[in-house]
Amino acid sequence: MAKVTPRTPSGFGEYLPGDQIEFNRLMDIIRSTYEKYGYSPIDTPDIELSEVLLAKGGGETEQQIYRFTRGRNDLSLRFDLTVPLARYAAEHENDLVFPFRRYHIGKVHRAERAQAGRFREFYQCDIDVIGSDSSIIDAEFPAVINEIFDKFGFGEFTIRINNRLVLNGFFEGIGLREVSAEVLRIIDKMEKISRDELVAELKILGLSAVQVDHVLEFTEISGTNDEVLQKLEDLKVTSEQFQSGVVKLRELVEALRTMKVPEKRFKVDLRIARGLDYYTGTVYETTLNDLPGVGSVCSGGRYDDLASHYTNTKLTGVGISIGLSRLFYKLREAGVIKATKQSLADVVLMPFGDEQMPRALKVASLLRSAGIPAILYTEPVSMKKKMKYADRMGCKYVVVIGDDETKNNTLAVKNMHNSESKSMTSSQLIEVMQREVSE
Amino acid sequence: MAKVTPRTPSGFGEYLPGDQIEFNRLMDIIRSTYEKYGYSPIDTPDIELSEVLLAKGGGETEQQIYRFTRGRNDLSLRFDLTVPLARYAAEHENDLVFPFRRYHIGKVHRAERAQAGRFREFYQCDIDVIGSDSSIIDAEFPAVINEIFDKFGFGEFTIRINNRLVLNGFFEGIGLREVSAEVLRIIDKMEKISRDELVAELKILGLSAVQVDHVLEFTEISGTNDEVLQKLEDLKVTSEQFQSGVVKLRELVEALRTMKVPEKRFKVDLRIARGLDYYTGTVYETTLNDLPGVGSVCSGGRYDDLASHYTNTKLTGVGISIGLSRLFYKLREAGVIKATKQSLADVVLMPFGDEQMPRALKVASLLRSAGIPAILYTEPVSMKKKMKYADRMGCKYVVVIGDDETKNNTLAVKNMHNSESKSMTSSQLIEVMQREVSE
Repeated sequence: MAKVTPRTPSGFGEYLPGDQIEFNRLMDIIRSTYEKYGYSPIDTPDIELSEVLLAKGGGETEQQIYRFTRGRNDLSLRFDLTVPLARYAAEHENDLVFPFRRYHIGKVHRAERAQAGRFREFYQCDIDVIGSDSSIIDAEFPAVINEIFDKFGFGEFTIRINNRLVLNGFFEGIGLREVSAEVLRIIDKMEKISRDELVAELKILGLSAVQVDHVLEFTEISGTNDEVLQKLEDLKVTSEQFQSGVVKLRELVEALRTMKVPEKRFKVDLRIARGLDYYTGTVYETTLNDLPGVGSVCSGGRYDDLASHYTNTKLTGVGISIGLSRLFYKLREAGVIKATKQSLADVVLMPFGDEQMPRALKVASLLRSAGIPAILYTEPVSMKKKMKYADRMGCKYVVVIGDDETKNNTLAVKNMHNSESKSMTSSQLIEVMQREVSE
Repeated sequence: MAKVTPRTPSGFGEYLPGDQIEFNRLMDIIRSTYEKYGYSPIDTPDIELSEVLLAKGGGETEQQIYRFTRGRNDLSLRFDLTVPLARYAAEHENDLVFPFRRYHIGKVHRAERAQAGRFREFYQCDIDVIGSDSSIIDAEFPAVINEIFDKFGFGEFTIRINNRLVLNGFFEGIGLREVSAEVLRIIDKMEKISRDELVAELKILGLSAVQVDHVLEFTEISGTNDEVLQKLEDLKVTSEQFQSGVVKLRELVEALRTMKVPEKRFKVDLRIARGLDYYTGTVYETTLNDLPGVGSVCSGGRYDDLASHYTNTKLTGVGISIGLSRLFYKLREAGVIKATKQSLADVVLMPFGDEQMPRALKVASLLRSAGIPAILYTEPVSMKKKMKYADRMGCKYVVVIGDDETKNNTLAVKNMHNSESKSMTSSQLIEVMQREVSE
C-alpha cells in the first residue's frame, strides 16, 4: 500500500512525551497560581462566528485569521483569548459576578509567516479582571507573575510597570497631546536607535527644542522605584491625568511591597508603552534577566472599555498573558528546559516470567493506591531489553520480581541513578517512593 | 455604535465558571489517573494536513470534517485523537519507547447535525498502548475506568468486555465467516428489536435454522463472568481463533481480579462488538447503572495495525476514550453535576475601607503562601453588596477586616454555610482553611 508521509503542517508543532511533561509542568504552575489568586476558569470555543470575532476589526491580525465557511456559517479560529473574553463577558453579563476574575489557558491560531519560534498554533495563558478600577487589582498581576516565574526557576526576571496616564498626561502637559501617539512610537524604539536619531525623529515630528528636551528628560528618568516616583512628582507637570497616573503607580508599588514581591523584581519604567491605542492605564512587561533575547515573556495592561462592540455596558478590564508556547520553545532551545523522563512514573515493575505477573500486578495496584504512578512492563523479553526500556523511559527505580523475590516476599529494587540495588518489601518500596515525591 | 450580538456558533458550547470548575475537576481526575498508570502526555496540533488526516479515508466522518485551504495548504481540524496518534507514532517511531503508553486530552471538531448533547467541538480523553499484545495491558483499561468512575462518584457503573476473536471465531466455527460482519450488525441491534425480528433478519441473510439457533444460543449466554467463560468453553467451537479469544478473555478477567477491580463492575458480555471493521481483539463499553440513557460513556478496544497508512511497521494498539463533553452535558442535565461555587477560592477578604487594604493584602498573601486560594475584594461598596458578592460567588468564608479587628490583630470570619461568625487570628484562619482542604 502506498504510504503517506506522516507530518504536521508547517508552523504546527508537537513534542515528544519528555518535553510534553515539562510543558505541562509549567502550565500546571501557571494554572494553580491563577487559581490561588481566586481567578475562575473559562473555556470558550476555538471557533467563533467571524462576524462576532471581527466585530471590532482584527487590525493587523485580521490577515492572519484562519477563516472558512461551513454551510451558512462564516467561521474563524480565535487568534487570541481577549476578544473571546469580551464576547463571553458581554454574552453572560447577567450571570457573571463582578469584578469578574477569569483565567483562560487555551490554544489560539494565527497564519503567521513561519519561522523558528513562531507558531501558527500556540497556547496563551491569560488572566483578566473585568469591572474594577482598583489599583490593588493592578497589583495582583505582578504578584502573580512573581510567583509563577519564581516557581519556574529560570533565574531572575524583571517586571516593568508603567501607566499610560503618566505618559499621556505628560505629553498633554507639554503641549503634545495631538502627537502623543507618534511620540510614543518613537520612544518605543529608544533601545534600538541612538540618542541623535531619536532627537532627529522628534524634530521631524515638529517638536520644539524645549519639547524635545522635556521628552528626553522624561524618558531618561531612572533609579530605584522611589527615585523614579519622586522625580515624576518633581516634574510638576500640570495635568490631572499625569497626577492621577503617578498616584496610581505609587499605589501599585506600595501594594506590591505589602504583598512582599521582592523590590528587585519590579521596576517603574517610563519607556514601557505596550501598544498605542489599546491600553489606558497600568501596563506590564516581563523579561528574563539572563535571557533578554527572549523578549517579553508576559505582558498586559489596563483597558477602559473591553466589549463596546457587543454591549452598552462599559466593562473596564486589566490583565496579562503568558505566551507559553514561545517561552517554552525559546527556553528549550537555550538548554534551560531539559526533558528528563518520558513518563510521570518513577518506577517500573519488571516481572521475571509470566508466573510473576500476578504479583507484579498486585504491587502495581498497591503503589497506585498509595498515589504513586507506576508502569508495569509486560513484554516477554530479555532482562537486558527490559533495562534498556527503563533507561530510555528515564524511570529512576526498576523493580525486578523473580522467583526468589516472590519466595521471600521481597522486591529487588534498582536505583538507576546510582546503580544501587536493594531488596525490600512492598511497603518499604512505597515509603521510598513517597519520600521521592516529597523531595 | 451598532452592536454585534455576542454569541457562539450553533453546536459550540461554553460554560459559566461554576460549571467549568466541575468540568475541570472531572478532567483532572481523568488525567491524574492516566498518569498513575504510567501513561505519558502528548498534545498534537488541532489542525492536520488533509492528505495526512484522511490517508485512511475518513469514512462516515469525512463529511463532518472542517476542511479549508490556506495558501497552498489543504488543512483539516482533527475529528478524533486516534488518527493523530497513528500519525504521531509513525512520525516519531524511532524516538518513542515501546510499548508506548500515551494519554491525550484535547478538543476535536465534527460538523455534526446540531442537537441537544451533540457538540461540534468536544473533548476526548484517550489512552492507548502501542506495541504490545499482552492481555495484561488489556486489563489496564478496565482498571483505569474503574478508578476514574469511582472517583467521579456518579453511582455504580458496568464495564462490559468482549473479544472479537471470540465473535469471529464462533462465526467461523459455525460456517458463517463470510457473513460475520452482517451477523454482527444484526446482533448489535439486539436490544432494540424483538427476538422474532432478529430471527427474521438472520434468515434473510441466508442462515440455516441450525445456524440461527447457534447464533441465538451464543448471544443469549449470560451469568457471572465465570459462568459465561465456562459456557464458552462448553460450546466446543472448533476454531483456533475462538479458543484464543476465550483464553484472552479469561486472562483479562483474572488480571482484573488480581488488581482488585470489583467483580460487580466488569462483565463479560458477548453482545458487545464496537464497530465492525476496526477492532480485532478485546472490546470495552461502559454504562452508568442509574443512567442507562446516557449510553456508553467510555469505550474502546484492541486493533491490529494502527498506522498502516503511514509506515510499514505493524503497530498494534489497544485503548479507550472518554467523551467528557457529552458525559458532562448529560450528567449536568440529569442534575447529577451541580455547580456550587464560581471560584476555586473558599475564602474572600473584605477590607472595611481603604485604610484596611494593606492588612487585607497581607492576610491574602499569608493564605496564598500556605497554598490556600483567596479572593481579595477591592470595591468600595456597602457591606450588603459585599456579602452579596460572596454569596453569589459561593465562597464559604467571608473575612471582614475593620478598624476593631486590626486594632486587636484579629479577623471577623463568617461561615456562609451556617452563618456563624468567629473572631480569629490569621494563623487560626489558615488552620481552618487547611482543615477544609483536607476534608
